[in-house]
Order: sequence, then structure tokens, then C-alpha cells
Amino acid sequence: MTESPQWTIDPDRALPAESGTRGVAREIYAAVEALPIVSMHGHVEAQVFVDNEFFGNPTELLITPDHYLVRMLVSQGFSPGELGVASRHDPALTEQDPRLIWRRFCENWKLFRGTPTRYWLEHELAVVFGAEMQPSAASADALYDSIAAALQTEAFRPRAILDRFNVEILATTDSALSDLSAHDKLGDLLGPGRIVPTFRPDSLLHVDHDRWTDEVRMLSDVSGVEVANYESFLSALRQRRGAFIAAGARATDHGHLLADTTPLPASEARRIFAAALRGEVTAEEAQAFSANMLYEMARMSVEDGLVMQFHPGVLRNHSHGVYGSYGPDKGFDIPVRVEFTRSLRPLLDSFGMNKDFRFIAFTTDETVYSRELAPLAGCYPAMKLGAPWWFLDSPEQMRRFRESAVETAGFYNTSGFVDDTRALASIPARHDLSRRIDAGFLARLVAEGRLGLAEAVETAVDLTYNLPLQSYAARN
Amino acid sequence: MTESPQWTIDPDRALPAESGTRGVAREIYAAVEALPIVSMHGHVEAQVFVDNEFFGNPTELLITPDHYLVRMLVSQGFSPGELGVASRHDPALTEQDPRLIWRRFCENWKLFRGTPTRYWLEHELAVVFGAEMQPSAASADALYDSIAAALQTEAFRPRAILDRFNVEILATTDSALSDLSAHDKLGDLLGPGRIVPTFRPDSLLHVDHDRWTDEVRMLSDVSGVEVANYESFLSALRQRRGAFIAAGARATDHGHLLADTTPLPASEARRIFAAALRGEVTAEEAQAFSANMLYEMARMSVEDGLVMQFHPGVLRNHSHGVYGSYGPDKGFDIPVRVEFTRSLRPLLDSFGMNKDFRFIAFTTDETVYSRELAPLAGCYPAMKLGAPWWFLDSPEQMRRFRESAVETAGFYNTSGFVDDTRALASIPARHDLSRRIDAGFLARLVAEGRLGLAEAVETAVDLTYNLPLQSYAARN
Amino acid sequence: MTESPQWTIDPDRALPAESGTRGVAREIYAAVEALPIVSMHGHVEAQVFVDNEFFGNPTELLITPDHYLVRMLVSQGFSPGELGVASRHDPALTEQDPRLIWRRFCENWKLFRGTPTRYWLEHELAVVFGAEMQPSAASADALYDSIAAALQTEAFRPRAILDRFNVEILATTDSALSDLSAHDKLGDLLGPGRIVPTFRPDSLLHVDHDRWTDEVRMLSDVSGVEVANYESFLSALRQRRGAFIAAGARATDHGHLLADTTPLPASEARRIFAAALRGEVTAEEAQAFSANMLYEMARMSVEDGLVMQFHPGVLRNHSHGVYGSYGPDKGFDIPVRVEFTRSLRPLLDSFGMNKDFRFIAFTTDETVYSRELAPLAGCYPAMKLGAPWWFLDSPEQMRRFRESAVETAGFYNTSGFVDDTRALASIPARHDLSRRIDAGFLARLVAEGRLGLAEAVETAVDLTYNLPLQSYAARN
Repeated sequence: MTESPQWTIDPDRALPAESGTRGVAREIYAAVEALPIVSMHGHVEAQVFVDNEFFGNPTELLITPDHYLVRMLVSQGFSPGELGVASRHDPALTEQDPRLIWRRFCENWKLFRGTPTRYWLEHELAVVFGAEMQPSAASADALYDSIAAALQTEAFRPRAILDRFNVEILATTDSALSDLSAHDKLGDLLGPGRIVPTFRPDSLLHVDHDRWTDEVRMLSDVSGVEVANYESFLSALRQRRGAFIAAGARATDHGHLLADTTPLPASEARRIFAAALRGEVTAEEAQAFSANMLYEMARMSVEDGLVMQFHPGVLRNHSHGVYGSYGPDKGFDIPVRVEFTRSLRPLLDSFGMNKDFRFIAFTTDETVYSRELAPLAGCYPAMKLGAPWWFLDSPEQMRRFRESAVETAGFYNTSGFVDDTRALASIPARHDLSRRIDAGFLARLVAEGRLGLAEAVETAVDLTYNLPLQSYAARN
Repeated sequence: MTESPQWTIDPDRALPAESGTRGVAREIYAAVEALPIVSMHGHVEAQVFVDNEFFGNPTELLITPDHYLVRMLVSQGFSPGELGVASRHDPALTEQDPRLIWRRFCENWKLFRGTPTRYWLEHELAVVFGAEMQPSAASADALYDSIAAALQTEAFRPRAILDRFNVEILATTDSALSDLSAHDKLGDLLGPGRIVPTFRPDSLLHVDHDRWTDEVRMLSDVSGVEVANYESFLSALRQRRGAFIAAGARATDHGHLLADTTPLPASEARRIFAAALRGEVTAEEAQAFSANMLYEMARMSVEDGLVMQFHPGVLRNHSHGVYGSYGPDKGFDIPVRVEFTRSLRPLLDSFGMNKDFRFIAFTTDETVYSRELAPLAGCYPAMKLGAPWWFLDSPEQMRRFRESAVETAGFYNTSGFVDDTRALASIPARHDLSRRIDAGFLARLVAEGRLGLAEAVETAVDLTYNLPLQSYAARN
Repeated sequence: MTESPQWTIDPDRALPAESGTRGVAREIYAAVEALPIVSMHGHVEAQVFVDNEFFGNPTELLITPDHYLVRMLVSQGFSPGELGVASRHDPALTEQDPRLIWRRFCENWKLFRGTPTRYWLEHELAVVFGAEMQPSAASADALYDSIAAALQTEAFRPRAILDRFNVEILATTDSALSDLSAHDKLGDLLGPGRIVPTFRPDSLLHVDHDRWTDEVRMLSDVSGVEVANYESFLSALRQRRGAFIAAGARATDHGHLLADTTPLPASEARRIFAAALRGEVTAEEAQAFSANMLYEMARMSVEDGLVMQFHPGVLRNHSHGVYGSYGPDKGFDIPVRVEFTRSLRPLLDSFGMNKDFRFIAFTTDETVYSRELAPLAGCYPAMKLGAPWWFLDSPEQMRRFRESAVETAGFYNTSGFVDDTRALASIPARHDLSRRIDAGFLARLVAEGRLGLAEAVETAVDLTYNLPLQSYAARN
């Protein structure tokens, strides 16, 4: 099959097909299409905006760093190295020619049919870069050249992109050990509160992590608190949270395998911490300690006002071989079932009714929305339901999220869309898709006589703009 | 946003938006819209109909006792007391002004968008009470006054409501310890079989329940069987079941955390029962005993013909703080995952092929419909699949129930809608919604060439009226 | 209700109702409607085609051997024997009059509304047999007579049916102990590769199976390898796999209760095997051994190129009573939850990146598609996602499969439809339904601006024809 060379992107894409509902959806979407982007949970590095350098080439921007895209090509027989992913041990495994990698991608465009990657890339290529042809063997080189040329213009420098995309606020995700110097500079360059850090202490909370003792040493250095025991560990974490708040942080972010939040008696926490410092901790102890630390992070959020974000349930680095050759975050992180109702009970029982606590839960297991997360968010004032995340930020999944969660949690116990991406160029595509899916869902409620149109429009604006700002508001 | 003051409720609400399918759905719905209500599983108190007193005010009728509604407002920052819920220890926590509570509700009407509470209330306010405005800060007082006035008319006394709503039969849910005197009086007042009791022995079957020994003592009193050991305990339960049958009961009802139905050797059941009487039972023993009692309840159903209803999988009183201050049933009961296939095997293996046994299973975990419950209901003649219940009796969930269960279980292994409600005024709204969703589902089958229209209409009538009557028929 | 005697089957059946989407779906379906059937996973016996005898009567062909149909009638009160199922112990339990059984089915036609059995039977009766009336009490005898007459014509002999249905290749499922003589004869009769065997060693891999030691003895006989220990057991299995490959086999097939694939140390495997030969194995040891054998089967697939098919998660023979009276495969096999992410890790970690390995996973638990199976198939090149299987090959489930799996796995990590059926006459109905559902899903993507029409048509052809041929291609 040959693709038509002319590429017109559908202005009604991702809206419902049925004509009556589509008409309503268009009205709702029109009210949110141009709203500023509020991006409260992302993974672009702050330093990119400090440096503000031209991106090197289309492959470096769009292919190699995108683990969604890389894994799909790997699933069909390419090695990660053939797509430009750096090998840890053998540089010969890694293709150096970005144009050749780009061709591999373009020749396999059909593999992405029906996936969100296809949807986002279509938006990025056609809308952001003005491409006039779909990727294919025939179009690969011309596409490469046109994008490469665009990347060398002022309009595509990182800070210019931020304005062009109408990003009002962007939260990065930062190690608890970060000295936050990039954010300090960004405060000067862009004004306060445009790009804000997020406190992510995972590597410090998993005491059986390989490099944990190194990290604890670095924590002492960066915090100025000598970490000698559990109490000083908590103090150092408090110091870092304070530093993040001073740099504009709104939230913390926690990725754990399990959702357990059971606190330990202080004596037991002390004992495990000391054992961990000696390198003598068991897997069970480490797990118990990490659950305890979630509880402690909640307690600190009550004190300092940082919103606590939590996303358990992904088994990292499923293939030891891929991890050994290429490292983490290469598309081999696979969800597992997670239990929330019992696991969150210690945390919510202690802090869930507290007006000073704010907690946002994410999942990659869609079955928990109706059974566990919506009922919890639908009663505890501290808790909001995070947007469909990672594997779930696709058209069908975002639609099912609304169909599963809203009836029990309502719209107003959800926290608004987060793009969760490392891929700067995909940010508007992702937010736009979310706006379209929400417009379609609301339009169906209107078409089925379950909501008024004016209410639907107001709700769409709230979901797009007001709820994420409120959910992540700095404490006054 | 200001709401239009005129409030016209959509006659096609909750029917499919697509015009062809909607046309078919209208035809199907027209055939069931006016059928009598068969309400075989509810929670209105029998005494309400004996007393037949005027309802006090709109708040007392519609807000405070509705845990769906209360928990949503609590999730957004109100305390239960601020919504009129009585505190166990501190009367000062509870707002006494019903009009003020009503205003709080009206001002927060938008929180219910997309929820079944919104849908039911719209029906109650507009259809039952003839309200002409949506709730809002502006309309609160006028709405309050008009409903309050209606409540002081003869037409809104409880027994008049029953006629007005066209309720053919209403099953209440009653403690196994009930003396059933209210039902005796209702037999005289309304004729036999209009309002019937349901035998719910949960508190007696969980032997580690706080007040269990008190309840056993009360069981001795009410049954006239001195409960001294496991055998006399079973005899007393048999006596109560007989008394319920004499009062018109059709069914028993069982809420357990787990679905386990493994019987114990009689000697072990005796031993645990004796230990429980001494207050020396472990949690594991109590769990094993409750599983055993489900098995025994099934055995008794074979003997006496009561339909056995079972709904496991809800962790009660998730927040100890809310429970401590306000007691149970305040919206803090949260579903957990439940396993049915292995758990029900002892019960179904023994009684599932028995023509004298009837068993209806409910769930709050929608994932078990296609995987476990529909396959079981689709082979065992004793088993039927209960309606989507509690968190699941909403438009999207009722639609997904049909989409998940019917292909394997068929329509005729489902037992028909139950409203499961304490909120008397919401009964017609709930049944009407179910009829609309079933009409929409059947209409799609017709529109997709999977079912004939005449068959669809016949099926809708069966689902609405014939199946619940048959599923809960008294044994001849 | 009386059915209209004229029975016109809807040419648009199972396509989307919405008119725009339906128009697109028609175009897509038109491109695949007449493609040959590629049936790579079925349960018709090879001997049926060798014998090529007339089918006896409609009941013997359509009712008694179809466990979907039998269980539905059993769920409404018939005994299996009343539907012609042979009792193991008491011939008097089994109805001998096929016409009476046929009437029972026809009188209860309404029980199948909304089920895939209804859909398939409608296709079989109206399209394959040209029936002009729906089953009913009134039409039962006439229908019986017309089908019975057709069955005595040359056009309805098994091999003629194969041509008439346009079956290009049919894979049967065969015990590892089969001498494959039927397949040898079919090679002569039909040419090589038209009907091919599939290697199914389940009974040999579950060492606590009643008849396991008998089966091992038979394995020695058929393989010519004296099985005395674990090593010779593996050798004998290798011999059988080789014999299957020589007879045209493309794949193995494995049904286990759990998905565990953890290998054992060779010494432990040896020890358990020896204990099993002595009849002294525990349930835990048997389970560990079966997991180990899955790992070994994967290793052998790498060596010999057979595609490995895996479908865990069904608890067989849920009712001991039905099993005792009527044996296995009577509709009382019930799904249980299965964990894949951790369970498949040993197998995928070792072989998932290996270009010589091909692995297809099936499930009866739809919740694992988005959470576990699509993420795994979306990264490991060896793995493909099998079609919705058993309880899941129905319109709603096949649609949900695409909605749940494609966004993460893409279309091209799915392996194409398999009919998985014993019911020869239902093969075209099943494939046709799958083509319609895929056409409808693709049409929605087109109607929502998410895919081009030409791409959708190409994808439909791939799903229907190219992907199953490629997924099960013989290694060159």
C-alpha cells in the first residue's frame, strides 16, 4: 500500500464518531482547546531549559529517548542498540547514524497503528513540525531533512518551545539529592514558578537498592545533615523537602512496587535503618521500611504542605538481559496487580481526613479505578485520583478511566491530566488528546441527557485548567 | 455559570445517543416503563410503613441518611456532622439546622455531575417532587420550601408513596433477631406479601464481632431455643428462618468479607463455637467458622426454600476515625478484590445442581463478572447472578454488567434489578434507570443485528418484572 | 411471543450501529469477508476427515458435543444426560432420542439471547444449512428434518465441508502420545500441510495426574525411548516433538492452572520425577515440576522451532458431581485469576529476546490484557498475544480485547484469530464474527480520525490472513 503524500490531520480526531455527540464534543473542546498547558508531573530535565541548546537531530529528539517507541520496534525484532540506545558495555552495539535509525522507524510506521505513540507522533510531525507526509520508506529522508532544518531555528530551542506550546507551568521530577541549581537559574531566567521541581526520594527509601549507602552519603552532603541514624535520616529528608519548597516545588513523587503504607514502631525503623547502613538488610525488612517511609512522607506532607503523589505497581527491568546491556527505562517495566484498599488504610486512616494533607494516587492497573481508588477518593477529603498514567494515557484508556472512576469519585475528586513525559515535543499532543477525550466523554453525558451543555463546558475547563492548578497549589 | 431556572428533565435520558439505536431503545423502554416495581432487596425499615408518619423535612429525607451523598460532600471537605450525621459522642459536632444543610448540598450540586446520585436526585426532585429548578445557591431555599410543603401532604406519607410508586412487592432487610412485629402489622395493614422481611444473620455468623455473645443471648430469647452449643445454635437459626418464612420472607442475605464457603468438620465447628462463647476465638477461627456457616446456610436453604443472597468483598469502616465519631454506614466501606471460583466451590459442588437450592451472588468488583460469576451462573442451575450492586448500580456500570455477563451467563441466569436502598424516595428513580440501561443494551443488540426487536421487548419485560418475581418466588 | 417464520439474517450483523462507522466497517469487512480460513488452533479430530462419514443427525452434530450449549441448558435445569451427554456409569441417564433433545433445545432458544452461541447457531442454521425459521417449539421438527436431510448429502461430508468453508489450513490438537497415523493419511488424501497436528503434552507434564504413570509407559512405547528417569523423559518428549514436526506440526499447546515458568535445578527435577514414578509426589512438587516443564518446553521450542502456545487459568471440573457422572469438558471449567508478569519472567528473561523463540499467550481473564499481556507482548520480540479465547471469543469480548490490547501491544504483536472449536460446522461462523468485530473496531479508529481507511483495510487483511500464517509459520 502506498500512502497518499498529502497529510491532512483530522480536526475532529479522537472526538466521538456519532454526529450528534460529535457536535456537542466540538463545542466543549472549543472551550478548552486553547487553554494554557498546566503540566504538573513531567520528566523533562530542568537543565535542558537552562542550556537552551538546539536539538541535534530528529532521531535524538523523537526516537531514541522515547521508550514507548523503542520498545515497540524492539518487540518486532530490532535491538535497542539498532535504535540508537547506548549500550552500557559495548559501543559497537549502538547504531551511530541517526538517519539510518530514522529510516528504520519510518519503514515500520505501520507497527504503531492504533497506539498512542502513533497519535502523538502524528500530532508532533504534522502540527509541531508541519510535515506533509506520513512516515514511510519513501518519505523518510525528506522528513528527516525538514525536521532537522526546523530544529536549527530559534523557534525550536527549548525555552522558545515552552512559549510556543503555551505552557503556563511545568513541574520536573528531581532526585531528592539534586542541588536544584538548574531550578535556581530558571527562576532567574523565566521568573518564579514557571518551571518547578518535584521531590522524588525513591532511591533513598528502598534500603536494599545497590547504591543506597552511596546515596545516603550524598544526602548528608547535600542536606548538611550528617545522616548517622534513622532520626538524622528523617531530618535530612525534611531539610531537602524544605529546599525543594524554597525552589518552588509543589509536590513529592513516589514509585514503589507495592502500595503498603504500614508504619513501623520507631525502634524497628531505627533497627532496620542501622542494619541497612551495615549492608545487612533483608528484602522483607527493606519492603517494610519503604512502607514505613511512605507513612512518614505523608506525615511530612501534613507538616510542609507538599502534595504527595504515589504510583505503585510496576515491576522494573523485567528482562535482566536488556537491563544489563542498556540499563533502566527502556520499555521493559511491566505492571503488576496492586492492592490499594488495605494497603493505603494506615496512611488514610491517619491523615486522610486531615485538611492539611493532599494525596494523589496513580495506577497502571485499570481494574482498581472502580473497585478501590474511586471509592477511596470519593470519601477521603485528602485524596484525589491521578490521571490515567503511563500505559493508560491513551484514547481508549482515558475514556475508560472516566467511565470507571467518575460515577463513584465524581469529576472533582480527580486531579487533572499529567503528561508524565520525557519527550518535550509531545507535551501539546498529550494534553490535546486528553482534552479531546474528556470533551467526548462529557458530550456523551450531554447527548444522553445526563448533564447540561453549560455544565459540561464548565467541567471541561475545570478538568483542563482549574483542577490541576488547585490540586497542586502551593500552600499559602 | 448560572443554571437556567427552568428545569426540563430529558424524556430520553440514559438512552443511547445514536439515533437509530435510540429509536429502538424507546420502543423497548415503552414496554417496561410503567410496569410495577418488584423490589426484592432493599433497606427501608418496615416500621416506617407501620408508623406512616409525615417525613420531617427535605434534609432528613434526602440528605443525611444517604451515604452516597454524604460521602461525596465529605470528600470535598465537609465533616459528616456538618451534614447532619449524628455524632456518637459529641452532639455539638452535628449541625441541627436542616435548612443550612440543604443549602450546603445545593451550593455543591456540581460535585455530583456524572454520578448516579445526581441522576437519582434529578429524578426525585423533578419527577417525584415537581421541582422546577436545579439545586444551586440561588434556588436552595425555594426548593427546600416546596419539598417541605409537599412532605406535609397525604400523598407523601410512606404507605401512600408505596402506591404512588406502583410498588408491587418490597423486601426489607432484617436482623435475624427481629421479632418481626412490624411485618405482622404490615400484613394486616397491606395484605400479605406486599412488604416482606429478609433474613440477615451476619452479626451472628461472625463470632469475633464485639457484641456477638450478646447477640447469641438475644437469639436464645427470640427463638425460644436455649443456645448452649453449636447444635442448639443451628436449631435456633432454623427456628428464626421458619419465623421469617411465616412472615413472608423469600430470602436470606449474607455480607461477608471473603467468599469462602468451606465447611468445617462438625467437631471443629463445635470447638470453635465453644471457644467463641468463652471469648477465646482467633481471627482465623472466626473466618473459618463464618465460611462454614455460609455452607450451613446453603444447606438450610435446600431444606426450607429461602433464596440465599450473598455479597462479599467490602471492607467496612475503612476510617477508624469516622467510625469512632459517626458509626457504620457513612460511606467509608471500600471494596476489596474477592475470589469466587475456588471460594464457592464447596457450596456449589454440594448444592449447585440441587433443584431445591437457589443462590444469588452479588459483587462490588466488576472484574469477576466475565471471569468468575458469569461462568458459574452459566452452568450451575442453582445460581443466578445478582444485579450490579452498591457502587455498581450506575449507568456505566449497569451497561458494563450486561456487556460482561450476558454473553456467558445469558439474560436468564440473571435475577433482575434490586434497588438496595434506604432512600425510599429514590426507589422509582433507581428502577427507572435500570430499565433505561437495559433498554439501551437490548437496543444495541437489535441495531447490530444480534437480536430481533420482539425478542428484545420480551427480554426487557422479563428482566424488569418476571425474572425478579421468579428468582425470589416463595417455594410452593 | 411468536417468531416470524421468515428468517433473514442481517448482512450487517455485528457491525457498529452508527451509520458513518457502519459504512466504513462495511468497506473493511468487504476486503476480508471472502479470505480463506486459516485455523491454527482447533479441536476437531483428524480422524473425522480420514473417515469422512456422513454426520448422523442434527443433535449429534450441533447439540451434544457443544459444551457452551449444553451448559446453558444445564444452567436452566436440564441434566447433561437429558441433552444426550453419555453418562460414565448409568446409560439410563442419557436420552437416546435425538429428536427429543433437538426439541428441548429449540423450545429454549430464548436462553441463548445475547450469547455467542446464539450468534454462531444463527449463522450455522441460516447460512450453512439454509434454515428459514428460528428454532422454536413450532419449528423444531421441520428444522430437524431439513438439517438431517442435508447431512446425508455429499456436500456435508467432513472433507467437502473443508472445501466449502474455504479452509486453507486447519491445525488439530493432539495428545503427545498420538501415533499421528490419521495425519499421515490426511497428508496422502489432502496433500501436505492442509490439516496439521499440534503437540499437546499436558497430561505428561502434570505428574500428579491419576493416569500419569500409564501415560509415561505409553510415551516409552510411542517414542521408542525407554523413559526411566528425567533425562530419558526429556529425550522421549524431544522425539515426539520431532515426530510432530515431521507430520507438519507448527506448534505446541499448553494448558496449566498457573502461569508459573520457574525452572528447577536439574537435580531437583530428577528427584521429583523419580518420586512421581514411585507415586510419591506432593501437590507442591507436581506444581513446581509442571512450571519447570514449561521452561523446558520453551527451551525445546528454541531448538526445534515449534511455536509455543500457552493458556493458563482455568479450574477444570468445578463440579465433582458432574465430572463423576459425565466426565471432563462438559462446561464446568471455570476461570480463575492468573498472574503473568512475575510468572512468565523466568521464561521470557531466558528466551524472550531470542529470535529462534515464538511464544503465544492466551487468557480467559480479560483484566490481564492491558495490565500484563499487552505490555509483555509490546516489548519481547518472541511473544505475541493470542486471540480472545474460550469464554472471550464473543462480540463484546473481542471488541474489548482490541480496545484493551492494541494501544500497548499494537496490532502486529497479536497473532490473529483462532476458533478453538470442536464444532466443525461453527468454524466459518466464528471466523466471520471475528472479521466483523475487527472491521468494526478499525472502522471506529477511521471514523475518529485515528487511522486512514487504506491502512485499516490493510490491517484487517493482516489480522485475518497474514498474521496467523506468519505467527504459526513452519521454521524454514
